[in-house]
This record gives sequence, C-alpha cells and structure tokens, in this order.
Amino acid sequence: MQKPINVAKLIKIMETFDAIKERRSVKHYDPNHKLSEDEIEKLLSLAVLSPTSFNMQNWRFVLVKDSEIRKQIRSASWDQAQVTDSSLLLVLCADLKSWKKDPAQYWKDAPKEARDFLVPAMGMFYEGKEQLQRDEAMRSCGIAAQTIMLAAKAMGYDSNPMIGFDPEKVAQLINLPKDHVITMMVVIGKQVKPAMPRGGQLPLDKVVFTDRF
Amino acid sequence: MQKPINVAKLIKIMETFDAIKERRSVKHYDPNHKLSEDEIEKLLSLAVLSPTSFNMQNWRFVLVKDSEIRKQIRSASWDQAQVTDSSLLLVLCADLKSWKKDPAQYWKDAPKEARDFLVPAMGMFYEGKEQLQRDEAMRSCGIAAQTIMLAAKAMGYDSNPMIGFDPEKVAQLINLPKDHVITMMVVIGKQVKPAMPRGGQLPLDKVVFTDRF
Repeated sequence: MQKPINVAKLIKIMETFDAIKERRSVKHYDPNHKLSEDEIEKLLSLAVLSPTSFNMQNWRFVLVKDSEIRKQIRSASWDQAQVTDSSLLLVLCADLKSWKKDPAQYWKDAPKEARDFLVPAMGMFYEGKEQLQRDEAMRSCGIAAQTIMLAAKAMGYDSNPMIGFDPEKVAQLINLPKDHVITMMVVIGKQVKPAMPRGGQLPLDKVVFTDRF
Repeated sequence: MQKPINVAKLIKIMETFDAIKERRSVKHYDPNHKLSEDEIEKLLSLAVLSPTSFNMQNWRFVLVKDSEIRKQIRSASWDQAQVTDSSLLLVLCADLKSWKKDPAQYWKDAPKEARDFLVPAMGMFYEGKEQLQRDEAMRSCGIAAQTIMLAAKAMGYDSNPMIGFDPEKVAQLINLPKDHVITMMVVIGKQVKPAMPRGGQLPLDKVVFTDRF
C-alpha cells in the first residue's frame, strides 16, 4: 500500500518557496493601480509579526500617500519613476531609542518571570552603544522589509527595496524625529514590466562556509 | 452565474501568510534532530535569492557543524542551549567590501547597458562611506535572515534570530576576515517546546504613519 501524500503540506512548501523565488526587484509599475485600504492593513499587520531583538519593535512605517510629497521624494531619489508610479511607497524608519521608551510595553503580556528579566536587560544591552542601536535599526527593518516583499508577492504584487535616495531630504519631507533613522524605502505595486533576468548570481560555494572562513 | 474562484491563488495567499504568522522565535530544540544536506542546500539556495543593494550579495553564511566549535560559541552566547541543541547554527556575516571586489561579477549576465551603468556606480556610491557599508551589511543580512526563517517554517522547522553573543569571541572562533562583520546568528531545528505567546504587540497606529511623523 502506498503511503498517503500530505497534500496540504506539499502545497505549503511549494507556495512559500514560490514567493521567495518569484520575488524580484521590479522597477516599472502601473501608475493607475492603487492598493485598497484592506490590502495595506493586511500587509502591515503581517509586517509587524517580524521579529526584533528583545521584541523592541523599533520599525516605523511611513505610508506616503500625498502625491505632492511623493513627487518631492522622487526628485530626491534620482527621479526614479517607481517612487510615484508604484501603488504604495513605504519609508521604513526605525526609532533608535525604542529600547528605552517604556520597555515594559514590549513584554506586557509575558509571564512575570520573563518580564522581570527582559525589561532591565534591554537597557543594559543598549545603553551607550550608538553603533549597536543603529545596527538594530538596519537589521529589524531588513527583516520586516522581506516580510513585506514576500507578503506582497503572495498577494499578487511586486516590490522594490530602495536605498538610492537622499536620506536627509527624505527625512525633512516626512518630518523624521531626531532620534529616528530612515533605513530604506520599499515600493509595492502592479508590474507593467518584469524585472530583468538575475544579473549575476554568485555560486553557493562563494558565500557559504563550513565552521570557519 | 457565480464568478469562478481561483483556488490556486487563494491557497498561495493563505500559505505564504501562514509562514509569516507561524514563525516564532523558538528557544527549545530536539538535540537529536539533524537537517539533511539536501535540506540545508535548499535553505541556502533560497537565502541567496534575497535582494541586496546593487546585487552585491554581501552576505556570507557560516554553517557551524563542528560540535566543539558549537560548544565554544554557546559559551560565548550566555550559555543559551539553542546554540548546541538546534539542528543548524548559521552565523550570518557580511563582507563590508564586496562592492569593490570584482563588482562586474554581480552583473555579468545583465545587458551591457545596465552593466556599464551599475558597475562603476557601485564604487561611487560606497567609496569612503564606512557607516553606509556597515548599514548595508545589517540590512542585507536582515533580509536574508527572514528569507531563511520563513523558508525553514515552510519546511516544518522553527528558528531563532540571535544577537545575544560576544561578537569578538565568535569572530575568533570562525576565523572572520578583517573586512567582514558578524551581523547575527540564526538557529534552525525541530522545536520541543513552542515559543511563549507574543509578549506585547504594539498596536498598528503606534508604528504606522501616513505621509509624515
């Protein structure tokens, strides 16, 4: 007798892998397409399930909807058309000091024992370490950006992570608080032209090492 | 007449979303379970599909298999059991100078026009900007880490991203080159105890802004 195949499991394996494989950085979007409010909320509700160190949830997501601000950000981004043509422009920022802003809120639902250990540990881990605080901003936003890009792919949309912009000009436009940093932008939308084929993948043995370099 | 439902599309939406929802940071693993070589290769083949700025592919993945090195890393990680009990320990590193190491290799398969623009642009963008080079390390590895953690979830495994370790000690143990940096570790395995319930989620309106702060 043949072993029964677990179809649900097979589909799951295929489909998450497909989102990873099919995600490409798309530059050309349908300017007439908009994401619905429900889709935007779905996307952000998934984004905030991304892990952060000490659960500090340091990411901040600025949805730029105002077309005038989008035009100004486009001109601060080497005039890249995707900034205004995509359906959604997200400026990913991080609060560099979230670890010390009422840290108990990040563990309010945890068992008392865990909370009593974790809340003071956060302060001790980050206090005075400016570079580590910035690393955390980039790391958390990188993780969340990939959640967003894969969720968008699964919803039938494409995306592009961007660092090609003048961070100081964009900071002014979105009124970035002094203790925050912009980590990248992500655009999402309906592609009108696919990404170009992959430009030059390094073979696995150039990037994977066993035990040591 | 009813509109036909596109079942394939619905399944896809559900399943990628499930991987995002079900990924939790698991601390307790079955020490007797090992990932097969095929599974490890699958995981890393997916990881390297993650986007990087200018396609610089700056991540480096060190698979720590040697049990003695794992023990030493565990003792440099506040003795966290997951370091030795998980099926796979990945030290995520980045080459801070990948943008200037034969940059043409990252665009070898691209159309000449794109290559002629992108290859020199990389050098101009990063030269002399040490903080930006480090940001890129953290950003790229954050994105790749989430690819790995979601792919692992879809394969039936759990994971945990870690920064609680002494980076200098771990750097010595894995013989980290001088122009590289450790960005985080990720452990993957078969959970023996689920993650604790989410500790304290911030409501969306605390992390999402429209147009400006």
